[in-house]
Amino acid sequence: MSAHTITWSGSIPGWAELIDQTLLPGEFKVLSIRTAEEMWEAIKTLRIRGAPAIGVAAAFGLVLGVQKAEAASPQAFQVAVKHVSEYLRTARPTAVNLFWALDRMERRAAAEADRPVEEQKASLLAEAQEILREDTEKCRQIGEHGAPIISEGSGVLTHCNAGALATSAHGTALSVMYTAHERGTNFRVFADETRPLLQGARLTAWELGRAGVDVTLICDNMAGVVMREGKVQTVVVGADRIAANGDVANKIGTYTVSILAREHDVAFYVAAPLSTFDLDVPDGAHIPIEERAEEEITEPYGTRTAPRGVKVYNPAFDITSRALVRGIITEYGIVEHPDTERIEAFFRQHCPERLASIS
Amino acid sequence: MSAHTITWSGSIPGWAELIDQTLLPGEFKVLSIRTAEEMWEAIKTLRIRGAPAIGVAAAFGLVLGVQKAEAASPQAFQVAVKHVSEYLRTARPTAVNLFWALDRMERRAAAEADRPVEEQKASLLAEAQEILREDTEKCRQIGEHGAPIISEGSGVLTHCNAGALATSAHGTALSVMYTAHERGTNFRVFADETRPLLQGARLTAWELGRAGVDVTLICDNMAGVVMREGKVQTVVVGADRIAANGDVANKIGTYTVSILAREHDVAFYVAAPLSTFDLDVPDGAHIPIEERAEEEITEPYGTRTAPRGVKVYNPAFDITSRALVRGIITEYGIVEHPDTERIEAFFRQHCPERLASIS
Repeated sequence: MSAHTITWSGSIPGWAELIDQTLLPGEFKVLSIRTAEEMWEAIKTLRIRGAPAIGVAAAFGLVLGVQKAEAASPQAFQVAVKHVSEYLRTARPTAVNLFWALDRMERRAAAEADRPVEEQKASLLAEAQEILREDTEKCRQIGEHGAPIISEGSGVLTHCNAGALATSAHGTALSVMYTAHERGTNFRVFADETRPLLQGARLTAWELGRAGVDVTLICDNMAGVVMREGKVQTVVVGADRIAANGDVANKIGTYTVSILAREHDVAFYVAAPLSTFDLDVPDGAHIPIEERAEEEITEPYGTRTAPRGVKVYNPAFDITSRALVRGIITEYGIVEHPDTERIEAFFRQHCPERLASIS
Repeated sequence: MSAHTITWSGSIPGWAELIDQTLLPGEFKVLSIRTAEEMWEAIKTLRIRGAPAIGVAAAFGLVLGVQKAEAASPQAFQVAVKHVSEYLRTARPTAVNLFWALDRMERRAAAEADRPVEEQKASLLAEAQEILREDTEKCRQIGEHGAPIISEGSGVLTHCNAGALATSAHGTALSVMYTAHERGTNFRVFADETRPLLQGARLTAWELGRAGVDVTLICDNMAGVVMREGKVQTVVVGADRIAANGDVANKIGTYTVSILAREHDVAFYVAAPLSTFDLDVPDGAHIPIEERAEEEITEPYGTRTAPRGVKVYNPAFDITSRALVRGIITEYGIVEHPDTERIEAFFRQHCPERLASIS
């Protein structure tokens, strides 16, 4: 990547810069985002997308929303923080990193509630920068832990984009591929184009190609055939939210890929940092699924292809049952055959504070 | 349908008229096709598509190719017929109705090889018109036999377009739905959009909507979710070629739908006339699969969405194993749980001459 998915420029006040992913690969444009409203819009319209990147964007969005607040008191500033956070939470419903990052920002604010307002602002920016820095590091570690699942000479299939563009850097599912590639493993990737918004065609094929990874683009409905033809041994996808029992919400179509993988004895892996786990929801049935505009399906890239007035169903995500998941690759290692007990034990070992906070 | 998929105008010489399906639903345009070369192009570029319609188009294409032939003798005319037939066979490789219709036209020509050339021409036009008339009747019968598989209040999923536009009238899979609708059955159809060429969005949603059938458009990668949500009880699709053992070649993505149907206890039916069976191929592995241009995937409807230079895999069809097929709905009734013996017995009963001609 010649530029980062999202960065902060200046200090306080400053602005966020992000790659407008709706224009890729035709146009590479970096947007300057100067208000919480602009960040809300950027998240809502998928200028920035991918669960970890949405978390970072929300954190910067909170800083943008309060950086010019002229609060009468430190306590009044806390109210402003809460207000902006509540607003940003409405941008998209499924990716839990949005809520995770805002929770963390609110905790930081609360912990420093007695300090002068200007110090609180600087502190929130520091927290957002730390979320970004940690995300980059976590993605790198996911790559390290995951790279061995890709065998020499094998085929890997991925869906949507869980790459550098979906995170602050490296990606989750694609970090596994980048690391395997850096280690000299030869493998071939099949990228589902991922209708309706074609993140696989526009973003994944672009990222992997630039990195020198052997990538072949297919339509979503071709995944079954490439598996039956023996071209794929491993599936790696990202996640937007993982329930306490290991059920995975990810881009629409992931569920179908997981069914196909089981049918063809292909190992199905999910790559995600612990921030994508939502230990408050017991299973996938409790994860809210965003439905998006009909035009995403009826007017692909500005061309009306469906008849006027046709009914459309456009869920943006689906749920893959934990029973279909061979393992979840995290920054601390792989949770094999995830279930509630294994995930709880994994958190107890690596992130016990998250277990303590379950509501 | 306010116009027919394909018709013949005039006598000898005359021309074929067909709806340009690449322009639907935005534009309704009827093309006049006056040469075999124009018909070859119309088939190749999917201006007319769908296995039964391709058969009718090829028959008219043969008439177009020889109607102005100034053969020195009836025998020389036979050579011209053979020559044009061989040419038309190269338009597309998978749909067997193309070859079936041209075989039938060649047999008619051979049977009248001693008659004057002008009589042979009239005779070939009569044969092509008969193929069209029979196709219309067969589609109607498929609807009659298939309608009972759609239960009151149920959901039906279809992939690609096996409708009036894919045949001379009524369709195959959609004929089942039209007949059920005419009989007053209430049901809801989910139409896969069917990438890359969106025949589901452009043609099926359009046809069903005009007929007053309740249709909802989804992306191909949403079929798994609507099945898991219990919205679908029956799948009905068409076929481009059916092997002697019941394996079915149909539009890419059909195989995935069949796997999903089994996973969710959804009955998976194929609707096709006997002309779509190829008793010369023992199983699906022997059916040639057309690969089409990369641009169908990388430049959907004129907008470049994939990075330049990306590798693409674009098979136009896939094979669904007979084991995944609940039944094949034909003009003579349903072949339940198809296999080689059942199909042979079905042909022995309804079309014994086809068994005799197996090479």
